[in-house]
Amino acid sequence: MDAKTKLCAVIGNPIGHSLSPQIHNAAFAELRLNFAYVAFQVEDVAAAMAGVRGLGIVGLSITIPHKVTSMAEMDQVDPVAQGIGCINTVHNVDGKLVGYNTDGLGAMNSLLEAGCKLDGSKVLVLGSGGAARAIAVTLAHKCELNSMTILGVIKDEREKLAQDVAAGTEAPVVNDDVNEETLAEHVPSSDVIIHCTPIGMHPKTDDTLVPEDLFREGQTVFDAVYNPLETVLLKQASAKKCRTIRGMEMFVRQAVAQFELWTGETAPYDVMAKVVRDALESKA
Amino acid sequence: MDAKTKLCAVIGNPIGHSLSPQIHNAAFAELRLNFAYVAFQVEDVAAAMAGVRGLGIVGLSITIPHKVTSMAEMDQVDPVAQGIGCINTVHNVDGKLVGYNTDGLGAMNSLLEAGCKLDGSKVLVLGSGGAARAIAVTLAHKCELNSMTILGVIKDEREKLAQDVAAGTEAPVVNDDVNEETLAEHVPSSDVIIHCTPIGMHPKTDDTLVPEDLFREGQTVFDAVYNPLETVLLKQASAKKCRTIRGMEMFVRQAVAQFELWTGETAPYDVMAKVVRDALESKA
Repeated sequence: MDAKTKLCAVIGNPIGHSLSPQIHNAAFAELRLNFAYVAFQVEDVAAAMAGVRGLGIVGLSITIPHKVTSMAEMDQVDPVAQGIGCINTVHNVDGKLVGYNTDGLGAMNSLLEAGCKLDGSKVLVLGSGGAARAIAVTLAHKCELNSMTILGVIKDEREKLAQDVAAGTEAPVVNDDVNEETLAEHVPSSDVIIHCTPIGMHPKTDDTLVPEDLFREGQTVFDAVYNPLETVLLKQASAKKCRTIRGMEMFVRQAVAQFELWTGETAPYDVMAKVVRDALESKA
Repeated sequence: MDAKTKLCAVIGNPIGHSLSPQIHNAAFAELRLNFAYVAFQVEDVAAAMAGVRGLGIVGLSITIPHKVTSMAEMDQVDPVAQGIGCINTVHNVDGKLVGYNTDGLGAMNSLLEAGCKLDGSKVLVLGSGGAARAIAVTLAHKCELNSMTILGVIKDEREKLAQDVAAGTEAPVVNDDVNEETLAEHVPSSDVIIHCTPIGMHPKTDDTLVPEDLFREGQTVFDAVYNPLETVLLKQASAKKCRTIRGMEMFVRQAVAQFELWTGETAPYDVMAKVVRDALESKA
């Protein structure tokens, strides 16, 4: 680090357990880029953004509780992030702050890198919270889907999400309650199943939302849950010869997308994934 | 670096050639402190200080052109820095920004560490610019001098400095033009001679302000010029068996004082001095 080192950072509150500094610093080191990445515990987002401008910080990751409120501080917000309704990334381009959301991109790229075809596919999203929203809206904007179905227990949230998804795609968008019947109707007929509820997350790792016998060979199943690394849902889907993708992948690839925005370089995926895997395995 | 890393930085404009990141990062590494130090090129000091507050940056070094204007952004300014009229250091204490000036401290501690006695001494300061001001005011506040004499070519600046020095000490403070006569009068009778004019600085390294035969054995001679590392002034003083102190020492020890403010730890002087020496030698 010297006087030409460019700074990136994550802001959130609390922030002391964020993995982002290790992930990005490992990637900067791998490519010998003169960048560094720190974490700031921030209460006042407007003051933090004034700081990003005033100090010339190049890139920011934004995490809870600032993903929505920080949008108002941007000079420009990417249309996908606007559709999602929050940002997780800021790129400071010569003093102009541009907001992005790479969470959905992280999931989308995880699917594509695993060989999953999204254009022309019937996509089923389970859940309607933050992760579901980021993924569903991103896929709507970025892919030519055949259809999207959203199943969730919170009616208002689910309907609002379906509406925002529909604004970004010409594909039909359906939403419904999530229960035995709707799962039995939609899981077998979907090409891509994206699980975004907390079911199966540590410590209740034996739970799963989807009955095993609904999976069909050749489907792609993604689980946003990343602790444990391989959930019961993924194990069962795998046993049914589905292509499975771990939540960890999304987490790594949202960081990959940030890194590439800030540096203009191709991110060293393997190095970044190793940091995340090592951290999650040491927790497990 | 992880999510608990504390950030310090230097602000200035331009800033790309600052050595401060290497000096402080080497010191943090030596003591295995979870701190990092970067440089920010800053135009708007108020915005930068808003950033320091908003992001919770722990410590700042301040350099040209922001040393004066940044004072207005502080919650509190150390009395010595107030007397000097500018700050080179900010310590963020739980959101309260406290301004200090460690430039004069750097010179004072260089003198003391070299074994020079300041209490009871007759001190001669040559020059009345920024370095002279920082050193003279600091010595006035921090030591029990016998007297201080300031010789300089810019009458207004010199008189203002003498006034500000007098406000911090009960010792008599004299100021006069710098010329053959005043040098012949004051150099031989002083215990400590502090040279703060640019004479002798690269590239005109053969120049010196003080005729060699005015030095007396046992005097202490400090030269704020640090390029070259050993000026003609210091070589001649050394030949006359004076104790000599290089400008590099002041530069290292102003950073030492900053480091100790921010971290609460004793700074690793040797490590910091090596960074500065290596950089100055590679330039020479």
